[in-house]
Amino acid sequence: MALLVQKYGGSSVADAECMMRVARRVHKTQQEGHEVVVVVSAMGKTTDNLIALAKQVNARPSDREMDMLLSTGEQISVAILAMALHSLGADAVSMTGPQAGIATDDAHTKAKIMAITPDRVRENLDAGRIVIVAGFQGITPAFDIATLGRGGSDTTAVALAAVLKADVCQIFTDVDGVYTTDPRIVPTARKLDEIAYDEMLEMASLGAKVLQSRSVEFAKKYGVVLEVLSSFEETPGTIVREEVKKMEDVVVRGVAADKGQAKVTIQHVPDKPGVAAQVFRKISAARINVDVIVQNVSEQGYTDISFTVPQDDLQRSETAMAGLLEEIGAKGVTYDPEVAKISIVGVGMRTHTGIAERMFGALADNSINIDMISTSEIKVSVVIKRSQADDAVRVLHEAFELSGE
Amino acid sequence: MALLVQKYGGSSVADAECMMRVARRVHKTQQEGHEVVVVVSAMGKTTDNLIALAKQVNARPSDREMDMLLSTGEQISVAILAMALHSLGADAVSMTGPQAGIATDDAHTKAKIMAITPDRVRENLDAGRIVIVAGFQGITPAFDIATLGRGGSDTTAVALAAVLKADVCQIFTDVDGVYTTDPRIVPTARKLDEIAYDEMLEMASLGAKVLQSRSVEFAKKYGVVLEVLSSFEETPGTIVREEVKKMEDVVVRGVAADKGQAKVTIQHVPDKPGVAAQVFRKISAARINVDVIVQNVSEQGYTDISFTVPQDDLQRSETAMAGLLEEIGAKGVTYDPEVAKISIVGVGMRTHTGIAERMFGALADNSINIDMISTSEIKVSVVIKRSQADDAVRVLHEAFELSGE
Repeated sequence: MALLVQKYGGSSVADAECMMRVARRVHKTQQEGHEVVVVVSAMGKTTDNLIALAKQVNARPSDREMDMLLSTGEQISVAILAMALHSLGADAVSMTGPQAGIATDDAHTKAKIMAITPDRVRENLDAGRIVIVAGFQGITPAFDIATLGRGGSDTTAVALAAVLKADVCQIFTDVDGVYTTDPRIVPTARKLDEIAYDEMLEMASLGAKVLQSRSVEFAKKYGVVLEVLSSFEETPGTIVREEVKKMEDVVVRGVAADKGQAKVTIQHVPDKPGVAAQVFRKISAARINVDVIVQNVSEQGYTDISFTVPQDDLQRSETAMAGLLEEIGAKGVTYDPEVAKISIVGVGMRTHTGIAERMFGALADNSINIDMISTSEIKVSVVIKRSQADDAVRVLHEAFELSGE
Repeated sequence: MALLVQKYGGSSVADAECMMRVARRVHKTQQEGHEVVVVVSAMGKTTDNLIALAKQVNARPSDREMDMLLSTGEQISVAILAMALHSLGADAVSMTGPQAGIATDDAHTKAKIMAITPDRVRENLDAGRIVIVAGFQGITPAFDIATLGRGGSDTTAVALAAVLKADVCQIFTDVDGVYTTDPRIVPTARKLDEIAYDEMLEMASLGAKVLQSRSVEFAKKYGVVLEVLSSFEETPGTIVREEVKKMEDVVVRGVAADKGQAKVTIQHVPDKPGVAAQVFRKISAARINVDVIVQNVSEQGYTDISFTVPQDDLQRSETAMAGLLEEIGAKGVTYDPEVAKISIVGVGMRTHTGIAERMFGALADNSINIDMISTSEIKVSVVIKRSQADDAVRVLHEAFELSGE
């Protein structure tokens, strides 16, 4: 008998029919002899509808009241799923986040889980019940309802799995696992049986939007084994876990593309201490997420600084740049709104050499020009023209022999 | 400075626009120098939609899960009203029933309030805030969410008013007060300035569906002054309060009609001890609400027993009667599905005589035949043919000079 935490997202619980499908799956899992805790998101468009309603009475609703409002979405889901399970003859009980003992800080709309007191969940499992917990929510020290922000239901599931020492935390979604790359770009992309936390983090932050980075970090920190799988098909998914020795045999686990980037280049910047700090302090004050940063070697006391930002932040970047040029004594600034970042990821890179050269060579052989390069221990990223992004993904997927049979 | 509890029902908070109207009214009340606690019901069709959703996954959803589900309706309302008040620049905070300290028993879907610990409400009032409390809900000893059943939001408002020692509990609704009778039947019906609890109870249970009997009983028990008024017009409503001497000057406060009754007559019942008990034990076991009961004087050891039941319960009554006849040795049973009960109500009856005669005389003068008669200290009811109900109301309204100018 294993203890499983299963998390079903919004598209898995879109309507009553989906709820019945989830109920059957949950029930089957229990009948196979397992203890099951289920975490559910709000149904389909519930959250969007509630936000639209709020906007009708207040253009800038307070965070506390938004949490009071939006937390109802998950509460509806847990009640409906409990009813669906009852209709199958299963013994099940629903709980709000607070009832499940999930305590958060008071950072409304983006609260962090501070502690979980799972006594009530445990008691109900011991009584043979399926326990259904509202994701995305908890209770603050002031007994207010708080929500966890984006991907919050995943976080709830992982945190519950950690504190209950679950054998696995299964994240049901609308894809059936993590692939070597986007199958819409490379039809021979292969579903991975397993992937290391660090690899998943690089893949996730690079645009493979299967799991929120925050929940993967959480899983890594507490050693929770994740499985990403489809709520619509009954096939095994991808296991996300601590890196083991044999994972290093694979040099590159996958290729990720982020096509939503723009490039900013500040030209002819005086190469003296503190200038880069000045630039990025300004950017950060404007709450713009900088991704890749490259500074070329200095020539006669001047350098160029390039960085990428999410395309949506480009306009704010331009505003932030105004005034800065004179301040730091730079010559000018150019923008390229049409770039993409392509990355190869794999823990095997730590022990293998020549990976970057192989990547650059493959791109060069296919006339794909590299704008910027950035590397970490387990990934190499290049920034290229967006129009060549899909080609680059195909080339690299091929070059590192990632395709299935 | 007064402390007011204001309750707005479903039709008063049907949509975002209604919420803004309620917010303006609440804000204005506070600006006039009062402390305000607001109790709201679920918006418009929310509850109906949630029930429909539940039925899609389970034909007989469990009471606990229904409460988990339906309590979200009021939670949405309090958050939206808080946001609406914020948009007007008011300081306001929303609370669920549990947060407002409302403890109930564990009779899910029809829970009773056991205690209210209003510390948090009081603290927020002291801080100058408008406090918005979700009606219809509370928390059980097991920390489950329970709902109070029909009219539950009124009960929440009255209970909060009692425990906070509010000056008045205002029930906003889609009518602007309590009338001498239904204005759709008698256009000259007059809005009452005030009415005694007992009169209101008789009027309410007789079909003047402005206030739930339960909340009037609660108000009476704890001496909470109620005001029934319109959420759409800014006119004074009707005060419902403890009877005072001068209320007795008016003999008849109003005329109520209940057109949803049916009559059952058991013929030729042996007139011996225990037979009536036997009949009504059976009826009660079938959970049928009997209203008027009349037993005629015995003739040669036999009698007829007649009673009225809600029309919707008639079929169940027929089922309950089957078998009973032989058991008690009665001759037969007849049903009349088309009756109405007309009542005159007034605390003045206690000190005035000849009221019943005047009533019967007025009906006789207008060829309205009386089937059954039932009296209490402050009301006289007659059961008549339903087709004559409106005529009877008009005749009595006239006979007791209840019309306005």
